[in-house]
Amino acid sequence: MSEAKSDIVVMKFGGTSVAGPEEIKRAARRIVAAREGGSRVVAVLSARGKTTDELVEQALEISKRPDSREMDMLLSTGERISCALCAMAIHDMGHQAISLTGSQAGIVTDSSHTRAKIIDVRADRISEKLDEDRIVLVAGFQGVSTDSLDVTTLGRGGSDTTAVALAAALDASVCEIYTDVSGVFSADPRIVSDARKLSMASYEEMLEMSASGAKVLQLRSVEYARNHGVRIHCRSSFEDGPGTLVVSEEEIGKENVEQPFVTAVTHSEGESRVTLTGILDEPGVAGKIFTALADAGVNVDVIIQNEPVGDDALADLSFTVDRSDLTTATDTIAGLGGISQGVRTDERIGKVSIVGAGMRSHPGVAAKVFEVLGEREINIEMISTSPIKISCVISADRVPDAVKALHEAFELEADAIRPEAPADPPTVTS
Amino acid sequence: MSEAKSDIVVMKFGGTSVAGPEEIKRAARRIVAAREGGSRVVAVLSARGKTTDELVEQALEISKRPDSREMDMLLSTGERISCALCAMAIHDMGHQAISLTGSQAGIVTDSSHTRAKIIDVRADRISEKLDEDRIVLVAGFQGVSTDSLDVTTLGRGGSDTTAVALAAALDASVCEIYTDVSGVFSADPRIVSDARKLSMASYEEMLEMSASGAKVLQLRSVEYARNHGVRIHCRSSFEDGPGTLVVSEEEIGKENVEQPFVTAVTHSEGESRVTLTGILDEPGVAGKIFTALADAGVNVDVIIQNEPVGDDALADLSFTVDRSDLTTATDTIAGLGGISQGVRTDERIGKVSIVGAGMRSHPGVAAKVFEVLGEREINIEMISTSPIKISCVISADRVPDAVKALHEAFELEADAIRPEAPADPPTVTS
Repeated sequence: MSEAKSDIVVMKFGGTSVAGPEEIKRAARRIVAAREGGSRVVAVLSARGKTTDELVEQALEISKRPDSREMDMLLSTGERISCALCAMAIHDMGHQAISLTGSQAGIVTDSSHTRAKIIDVRADRISEKLDEDRIVLVAGFQGVSTDSLDVTTLGRGGSDTTAVALAAALDASVCEIYTDVSGVFSADPRIVSDARKLSMASYEEMLEMSASGAKVLQLRSVEYARNHGVRIHCRSSFEDGPGTLVVSEEEIGKENVEQPFVTAVTHSEGESRVTLTGILDEPGVAGKIFTALADAGVNVDVIIQNEPVGDDALADLSFTVDRSDLTTATDTIAGLGGISQGVRTDERIGKVSIVGAGMRSHPGVAAKVFEVLGEREINIEMISTSPIKISCVISADRVPDAVKALHEAFELEADAIRPEAPADPPTVTS
Repeated sequence: MSEAKSDIVVMKFGGTSVAGPEEIKRAARRIVAAREGGSRVVAVLSARGKTTDELVEQALEISKRPDSREMDMLLSTGERISCALCAMAIHDMGHQAISLTGSQAGIVTDSSHTRAKIIDVRADRISEKLDEDRIVLVAGFQGVSTDSLDVTTLGRGGSDTTAVALAAALDASVCEIYTDVSGVFSADPRIVSDARKLSMASYEEMLEMSASGAKVLQLRSVEYARNHGVRIHCRSSFEDGPGTLVVSEEEIGKENVEQPFVTAVTHSEGESRVTLTGILDEPGVAGKIFTALADAGVNVDVIIQNEPVGDDALADLSFTVDRSDLTTATDTIAGLGGISQGVRTDERIGKVSIVGAGMRSHPGVAAKVFEVLGEREINIEMISTSPIKISCVISADRVPDAVKALHEAFELEADAIRPEAPADPPTVTS
């Protein structure tokens, strides 16, 4: 995390930002403006609008379980199309651009097709093209496997990770993520009308927010940014003005702003709950279950286990998973054979979370959350906490009420917090 | 041109043969049947149906003159999609398939983007995959440039060339070209209802036929096949049964069939004529004109120049070009500055040709062509001949009449020629 960054800017444009010819030209103008402003520019592009969905549909017309290597060969074409078209637009604006596939850009991954992990970034070709005064466009979401030289993809939202990984490898001054929203908000503006755009958020806060429902940035890209000290700027493709800067707590500290107790309220309605009734309350049982789930690629979010009552030492275990993983989860449990007396599923559950680095130094936040929800007669079914987050699983129907109540109770609206001239120094740890 | 070919078959499927999910599955079944019949199979696929046209349209929405390198990056995605989908279908049929891009398949080209020439085929990776008992699917129409490692494309119809080049490199027993027609016909069946499917044609005949309007095989692929002794079998994706074998005259000779005078009547309505009036009848003038046209990438077909009359030594020069090249041709002529007194263009002209290796040993064919057209009062405007072809430029309106008349006059209908037990040995030279 050196202070002296290069003059390279990485800009990433999501699917809605390259959806049609006008959007592509708009992205091209932004890229050219950055170049003309003196930066060397690497732009990472996603597939256009619904392209990836359409390709998936084509695959499912052919096969119910498409081969994953071939799926990657198929899906990787979408980003290449965006890049080639954007390069054409930039040429017409009088600048030299060159589009590169993930492979050509040196994004080296493991061989886990459809969810590959970046293991190396060999950015020599990008550097060479930048030195030739070119704008470099890189197809997001994809790489090349180190062992078999096959095309791989990084999973949904992987273009964010491509952008951050390139920013890290090139020591870019900033990684700008352009989407159809103008930044990260204190709550979903569709639910809370006076939600505030955050001027800054720490990596840790952003990680918790991404994990608990905020959709602006892909979780993995934030982790990568934190690990490599990449400054992220979430901005809108469609308006000017600053968005939200995602940086280290240290950098936020230097800005000398007051740290709020709570930064944002996030929510999710995309999870399901699995409850195993009557499992043996013995060492090793939970380990067996969650190892099997991890092996099946299921990310488990909240877990609770009640204490056994009586002498039979049988307990109930509940956990939540992303709804798309529910079938895999129940299949995996069934595959363990009679580990519990019964399995119940709750396909649609709600979750509301509050996130804020300031919670570390302000005890009592959890109590206030429970009190606020209790006042609204919103029943908390499960709770999960971290030093900077409190999540409550609640009825999906009550999510909007809970988000509004918490946003109001913690005074997150437009001008309540992070004043320009703070009275006190920030209370952060780093 | 060794006699002992390998057990490898190269199969090429055109755009209509992979247009929808059902067509892709049908192609997959053919490929699997060939594998189960004991052949090792390499299949080359084109882009689905209208995919390439749609991608071109997307580019033109962005830029009036899209950068050619980026055009190649864009267009090369179509064939990759076809290959990935077909590989999925083959997996579902219980066979192992792997799709390769042109680059992965070792198709090395020069750097002439959008019309690259294959300069080497490094088929090691294909051989390796065949040895692993895989069916190899290769994205047609594309390669990788040797100097810059950029994606290149071979021009429209380039997938035929990809298939033939791979067949040559792998010493395949045959290169099967699957399209929506069942072979090469003695004339266009839409014009001549009793047109005959040819069981065989020589490379030389096929070259003349492709050059004079037959659309079954791309000209360049036939040249490549002749130069490398690749046997081509043109077949239908949609019916079984043999199509047309395109082989050397030597191989046809061994089949011991009677060589007809004329093999087929071809026609074209896609050409235009340029007439330069009042050019100096001096050495070097024509050279200057046609060198400039060649440099501009314009293929000139028929050329005639009349003798100057009188003392001013001014002549008229006419030539025909593909209609898509007409603007480039007239721009090029204009760029030469006052080389003629005037330029006339005739945007739509017709051309009818008769092709047959037997013409070499049967004089008088040309006379008969002129007589047949004369009887129908079809005016011949220009004539071009080769040892095995006679082409006449005529009014576009009279093309169907001319084709019918010639087909009938030379008795090319269903059972007139190439009997199974010929009386005489064939009269061929090779």
